[in-house]
Formats: sequence, C-alpha cells, structure tokens
Amino acid sequence: MAGKRSKVLINCDMGEAFGNYVCGPDQELMPLIDLANIACGFHAGDAIVMERTVALCKAHKVLPGAHPSLPDLQGFGRREMLLRAEEHRANVVYQVGALRAFVEREGLDLHHVKPHGVLYGMMARDDNVARAVWSALPRGTRVLGLAGTAMERAALECGLEFWAEGYADVAYRADGSLIITKDRRAEGHRSLDAVRAHVRRQVFEGSVTADDGSTVALGLNDYPLSICCHSDSPGCLEIVRAARDVVDEFNASELCVS
Amino acid sequence: MAGKRSKVLINCDMGEAFGNYVCGPDQELMPLIDLANIACGFHAGDAIVMERTVALCKAHKVLPGAHPSLPDLQGFGRREMLLRAEEHRANVVYQVGALRAFVEREGLDLHHVKPHGVLYGMMARDDNVARAVWSALPRGTRVLGLAGTAMERAALECGLEFWAEGYADVAYRADGSLIITKDRRAEGHRSLDAVRAHVRRQVFEGSVTADDGSTVALGLNDYPLSICCHSDSPGCLEIVRAARDVVDEFNASELCVS
Amino acid sequence: MAGKRSKVLINCDMGEAFGNYVCGPDQELMPLIDLANIACGFHAGDAIVMERTVALCKAHKVLPGAHPSLPDLQGFGRREMLLRAEEHRANVVYQVGALRAFVEREGLDLHHVKPHGVLYGMMARDDNVARAVWSALPRGTRVLGLAGTAMERAALECGLEFWAEGYADVAYRADGSLIITKDRRAEGHRSLDAVRAHVRRQVFEGSVTADDGSTVALGLNDYPLSICCHSDSPGCLEIVRAARDVVDEFNASELCVS
Amino acid sequence: MAGKRSKVLINCDMGEAFGNYVCGPDQELMPLIDLANIACGFHAGDAIVMERTVALCKAHKVLPGAHPSLPDLQGFGRREMLLRAEEHRANVVYQVGALRAFVEREGLDLHHVKPHGVLYGMMARDDNVARAVWSALPRGTRVLGLAGTAMERAALECGLEFWAEGYADVAYRADGSLIITKDRRAEGHRSLDAVRAHVRRQVFEGSVTADDGSTVALGLNDYPLSICCHSDSPGCLEIVRAARDVVDEFNASELCVS
Repeated sequence: MAGKRSKVLINCDMGEAFGNYVCGPDQELMPLIDLANIACGFHAGDAIVMERTVALCKAHKVLPGAHPSLPDLQGFGRREMLLRAEEHRANVVYQVGALRAFVEREGLDLHHVKPHGVLYGMMARDDNVARAVWSALPRGTRVLGLAGTAMERAALECGLEFWAEGYADVAYRADGSLIITKDRRAEGHRSLDAVRAHVRRQVFEGSVTADDGSTVALGLNDYPLSICCHSDSPGCLEIVRAARDVVDEFNASELCVS
Repeated sequence: MAGKRSKVLINCDMGEAFGNYVCGPDQELMPLIDLANIACGFHAGDAIVMERTVALCKAHKVLPGAHPSLPDLQGFGRREMLLRAEEHRANVVYQVGALRAFVEREGLDLHHVKPHGVLYGMMARDDNVARAVWSALPRGTRVLGLAGTAMERAALECGLEFWAEGYADVAYRADGSLIITKDRRAEGHRSLDAVRAHVRRQVFEGSVTADDGSTVALGLNDYPLSICCHSDSPGCLEIVRAARDVVDEFNASELCVS
Repeated sequence: MAGKRSKVLINCDMGEAFGNYVCGPDQELMPLIDLANIACGFHAGDAIVMERTVALCKAHKVLPGAHPSLPDLQGFGRREMLLRAEEHRANVVYQVGALRAFVEREGLDLHHVKPHGVLYGMMARDDNVARAVWSALPRGTRVLGLAGTAMERAALECGLEFWAEGYADVAYRADGSLIITKDRRAEGHRSLDAVRAHVRRQVFEGSVTADDGSTVALGLNDYPLSICCHSDSPGCLEIVRAARDVVDEFNASELCVS
Repeated sequence: MAGKRSKVLINCDMGEAFGNYVCGPDQELMPLIDLANIACGFHAGDAIVMERTVALCKAHKVLPGAHPSLPDLQGFGRREMLLRAEEHRANVVYQVGALRAFVEREGLDLHHVKPHGVLYGMMARDDNVARAVWSALPRGTRVLGLAGTAMERAALECGLEFWAEGYADVAYRADGSLIITKDRRAEGHRSLDAVRAHVRRQVFEGSVTADDGSTVALGLNDYPLSICCHSDSPGCLEIVRAARDVVDEFNASELCVS
C-alpha cells in the first residue's frame, strides 16, 4: 500500500443486550474503542439498552453509530430473510431514526451507520440489498462496510461517505469474504499473537492472509480504515486490547497522516 | 366559555395496520382530517406502514404526529402494563425517533405527539406516568392530551406545548374521564345526530354531557382544541364527516379567531 | 385417472386473526368446509384466536388441523427465512403442541398438519426442509401437501400419512408448482366459472391446466385429495361455495367410493 | 410441624435462554436438582432451548415441568400486565401444550406446572388471576405454588394436585409474601450459611424467619414441599448446593417418610 493513510479507528458492536439478557462486556470495552455500532432493537438492544449505551458512549467519548439489522431477535440477525427492497429500506429508516433520537438527546451527533450480521453479508454480495439499505440514509451519511463489494459500490451510488473495514476477530476467504462462525477465533485466530498479526497486516499493508494462505488486498483505496472487533466474541477484551496496540502503533507511525 | 377560540382541528389515529393486517380506511379518512396520529410499531404499524402513512399525510396535507404506545402488539396497546418510568421514557424516545425519521425523509416536520390507548389513560390519571412519557420529548414539543388531568399538568412541567382534546366517538364520565369500550358508540352515540350534538357541545361550549346527564367542563382554558376520531371505530367515516361538519361550522363562525 | 377415488374434502386456513386484527370470515366459512388448518401463533393466530377457532370447529363439526409456519408475524409467514433443520423441527413441535392442547381441551383429536405459506413452498422444493418439518411429527400423523414434490417424498420417509392437495384459488405452473400472488385470482381465476372448471379438473381428472395451457398431472396416486381454499382471498366465500358445489358433485358421483 | 413429611424436592427455573442469549448455568445445575420448571417461550426460552432443556432433563433424570408466563420477553415476565381471565387461561393452555410436545417426544411425562415471575405473584394475591391460570389445566395436574394464598385456594377449586414451595434464595415478608429483587440475596441471604439456615427452617420446621425477624408458618398442611432455587441468581450453583445439603439431610432423617 503506497502512501500515507489516515488514522485507523476501532469499531465494536455495542448495546446487544436485551431486557434481562446481557451480551458483551460493554463497560469494559468502551475505554478501548473509538466507534460504537449500537444495536437498534431488531436483532438486539431495546429502548433502555440503547439509552444506556449512548450514555456510555458519551462518558467515554466513543462516537456512536447505528447498527441496523434484519428483524430477528431470536436469530440475533444472523438468519437470512428474503425481504423486498422497500422492506429493507423502511426497516433501516426506522432503526436509524430510533437510535438517532437517543444520540441527539445526549447532545451528540450520529457518527455512522453499520449494518449488522447477515444483512451485512447480504449487502456485500447483492447490489440490490446494498442499494435498498443504503437508500434509507441521507446523502453524506458516513457508513462502514466491506471495500470491493456491493456495499462499497452502492454506497458511492447513494452519495454516502464510505469507510472500509478490517476485522480483528474474523478470518477471510481467498475471495475477500468473511468466514462467520459461532466461535470467530476458530480459523487461525486462536492466539493473541495471531490476532495481532492479522490486524497488523490489514492496518499496515492493507491486505490480509486468507484461510488458504493466499494474500487478499482489502481494496482500501483512500477510504478511512476501521478495524472491527465483536463484543460477543470469546475473549473479546483481550482481542480488542491486542488490536488497540497494533492500531495505536500505526496511528503513531510515519505511515499515518495526523 | 367566554371569548373567541382558535381554529379547531380534527385528529385521527392512522397507520394502525401491521404487515398483512389492515385496520381503518386510512385512504378515505385522510381527506377529512387535519392531524394524523401515526402508530410507531409498538401497538400497531410497522416500518412499511409508517412510510406509507407519512406519504399519505404529505399527499393530503395532513400534519403528521407520533402515536407512541405500550409495547403490546397483541393487545393493540390497550392492556395495562406496569413499566418503570425509565422504560416509559425510553420507549417514547424510541418510537418518536423512528417516526420522525420517516417524516423528515418526506421533507415534513413532526407536528405533534399523542400517546395511544391505555398509555393515554394511565397518563391522564397518574402524574408519574405522565411525567415519564412527556420527559421523553424536547421542550416545546406540541402534545395532545386530556385537559384537567395529569397529562396537562405534566406537559406544562416539562415545558411542552399542550393542546386539549375532545372526542367525537367516545362518551365521558361525570369526572371527565373517557369511557373506552370496544364499540365506542355504545354509550349514547348510536346516531350521527348524537355524534354531531356531542361534538357541537365540546367545540362550541367547551363542555360535554357526561353519561349520567351532567355537564362537564373540558377545562380548555386557552389551549387549542382538537377533536379526536378513531379510524377503527365502526362507521368511522360517517363519524368523521359528522364531526367535520360541526368543526367547519365553528371554524367559519364568529367564535373562531382566524 | 383410472378407478374410483375416496371422498374429496375441502380444507381452509383458519384462525389467522391476531389480537385486534381480523383476517378472513371464519364464521361464515366454517359451515362450508371439512378441514380447518389453524394458525399456531407464528405467522398469525394467538392463544385466544386459537381457542375460539377450535371451538368454532367443534360447533361446525369441522376437523381441526395445525397450520405451523415460519416465525414471522410481520410477513404473515410469506417471507423466506433460512433456518437450520433443527430450528424448523423445533418450531413445528412447538406450534403443533400448542394447538393440540386447545384441540384436546375441546375433547377433539388433532386431525392433520399442514404447513403454511412460504414454508410450504420451501418444503415442496427442498428435501432438507421437508424432512426437517415432517420429522417434528409422530409417525402416522396425517399431513397435507403437494404430491410429486419433496413434501410427499419426505412424508413417506418419515412414516406419515400423506394427503394430496389441489387448490381452488391458486394457479399452477407447467412444472406443477403454485403461483402465489397477493390476489390469488389474478391468473385466470377471475370468474367463479373459472374456479369451478379449475376445481373440476383437479377433482374429477386428477390434473390441472397450467398457466401456459399445458396439462399437469397432480400425481395423486392413491392419496386422498383435499381441495384448499384461502380465507384471506378476495371473494373467498364465493370461491369456497363454488368449490363446494364441484366437490359435492364428485362425492355423490359414481367416481367416489363411499 | 407435627408428624413426618414426604421427601422434599428441589425445583429450579430452567431453559431461560433465548436465541443467542444465555441465562443460567443449566448444565451444571441439572445434576443438583429434582424438578425443572422449563420456560415456554413467553418470558424466555424458544423452541430450540425447550428441546435442549427437555433433553437435559432426560439425561439427568430431572422431572420436567412447564413454567408459563405473561407474554413479555423484554420484561422477562416480571412486569405486571392486566389481562382478561380468558387471555390468562388461553396463554397457559398454549404454553403448557407447547412444552408438553417436547416432553412427550422424549418419551417423558409432564410432571408439573409452575407459573413464572410476576404471574406467580399476581396469582398469590388475586383469586381471579389464580383461577384463570389454573383453569387452563386438566384436573389432577400437579402444580407448584405458595401455600396459604390464592394459588392454593384456586388450585383446590380446580381439582389440581397442589405442592407447596419454599424458597432458598428469596426472603419473606411477615405476611408470607416473597420479596423479589434483582439480587435476591440482598435481604439477609448474603452468606451460604444464611441460605442453609433459611432452607433448614422451611424444610425442618415448615416456617420461615421474615425480614422483620418474625416467624411465618408456610402453611404446608400435608402438601409435598419443594424448595425453589433460581438459575439466574448470582452464585446460584453455590446456593443450590447449600439447599441440596439441607434437603438431603432432611430426606435421610427420621422426619421424612420414605
């Protein structure tokens, strides 16, 4: 990757509790991350959880984003549903609007939107789904997604500000797609050293070693890069700390424009 | 009622369909009303229904408002639930935010907020519930409610703009409370003449004949008055037309400041 | 179709109301049908609706069956969801068990099981889904489905009693699959004469005229045949009456073994 | 408490996970308990969780019971809802039927029914709610509840087999009612010694020390006694082990009829 890059930020899915159910260690994670993707009640989160998560963001100066999903609490937004384009669009308008209300109530701005789970995957490979979701957002909205996929193409079409993502706790296939499993560390990410190497490659080189050993370019172009960690991964705190170290090293290096 | 009053507007609950299920004749009602209270997905409505209902408002120049509810689709928001104040508040932030997103997407402004069903009744008689719900809204928000109850008191405390409501299709008790039944016309409102007389008394005199024959003042003070009709009442179109006639007569009369 | 056939019965989806929302004219339909497929709360129906629908069945001597679905009230069970086999199976165990409780409480037996909506379609074309759903049922359970598809194959594998279905209000493609639309009568079924001809061909000849004019055998073999009508079709009462006439004519004819 | 008593059994709420969300340590608890109250999907549990929990019961020879609730996943069945009697009854028919299907599929019998959360509390103090819920069950059904309350009275009226409960992890008021808090050990149950003393009094003496120091008779009469532990209490495994020790000591003593 030639030339300098802008500061890399760490994003993490947050506020994925629901009612009596807890999810990740949000309180411990907040000091370690830059951007929070906050669940909006469709796959996780409820009004109380959203309110508290936005307050946590404010306390920790983490930038709040919306994390809309398919409407599937039981499946945690990880079961594919075939919706019409107008359903996708309206669902996203609804969820982002609901979260924005909590954000603005705290005197903050909604920083970005990042789709959740299988909806993210559907958008990466299907231009129609990507267009349907992105068309819910006002022009100029900052969105996070996978570069080199329909997510990027449709975001540009819709006049959105695209940020590229890398993944600390997910392995890649040779075609650049993500290998989503229940235990995300299963594929070669068992050690924190492996996490650090995985993140380092993405952050410093803009590419990644796929599960077959081949090198895949992340296609970052000039997009800002954000590294995603999951709050519901086993050992997520250690993974985020490992990613933080690498990202901080990059941000302090000569490779980063300040 | 001494002095002139401002123009009376007709409000109606709208967008109470859900998925495959229809509710009232929204398309036929829209040309007859001034304000729409749009369901926000908790007792009725879903993202698609909300989008369409806001578009209908725009087409008919009806002013769109949010109609938040208890979270009870099965009970259509008509079964009392004992929530904590923070749950009430967060639920209303969520719902109003979701609706506002559809409204702003159409280039409109959210005109008002009116709570739905049993939540409305709980607010009328319980200051804590009224405060919890109203505290979800920014100061200056226009809200509709029952004058002379906790809804009014709490609205003023919260710095909201209070509008008083009268009801075309609901009878009153001598204490000013509403008699909510499945067939709202059961108590003395069987004929359209009775509806007209019921509305006329409220609009022209600011009082109402209760079910025991006594006269109850609506306590309108200087609040703007809006007459509520329900889209799911039997014969709702005829009721709205009857109310419209009376309201139009008042608005064209010398009693109304233009 | 050589030889005599057993009596043809009419089945109809019933109990598809939910809370405050109504669906078809169940009360008027009950006297016209033989089998009711009762919604179990996943795409429609709730505990109260189920209780009332079973009571209606008892009053009208209609045989009650379970009508399990994908878990999607908003989509009325008509949006494809990709579930794991164990999810399909457990969902059907749950729904059929819930309905059976209401049926047994009335002193009746559960007569049959017929999957709803898009789940039915997924089973017709995917052996894995068909096996997953049917494996939820005890051996010997009577099930309704589309002959000549994975529904039939998997039912036999699972030791179930298979009954074949024909459709009064749905058109067929040349490959025997059903053309599901919002207005089922759109494809050539606009007139009641067309419905009668459509049902007559299926009942008397065991075949159907597809939308391209070709003849498709229903593959009934020796399965009992049941003709399905939908309670949410426009004009459903007239359609059921038309189907009833044809079915009654067949059942009284020499072609029917008594 | 004069005379010998039958063996005391430990019951525990189980299967309160939902989708991706976990609740208590069911696998570790199963070897320690006698009866499982299995969530039925209304406050917790889903079809997959129910299937797995019943299988766990079978593996550990724990007797499976149904744990029906108000329909409130977000509130975990702990928020009061005012339902009509027919709604309570139909909800319980539905839930118990669904669970029974999983139990019978494993070749087991449904052992008992114990209502969950705030529904339990509403039944303890309101005869109408208690009658509505119990009337959902066939005569002779074994039910667990609080002796000396409407739960007992209505169970006898409905011809059910009543078992009395004591609580290992909940404190009592002087009127015999339970003090339900988020952290159940808050009131005087901080130490395991306190748990043991609390259980010992109930099991050996049939009474309990209330939070004001007074002694309250549990009103066990000749009902079998079961001690309840909660799988979502902090430190639940230690609490169950402590209760187990005391119960085992009683069951091996001369006070217990074998």
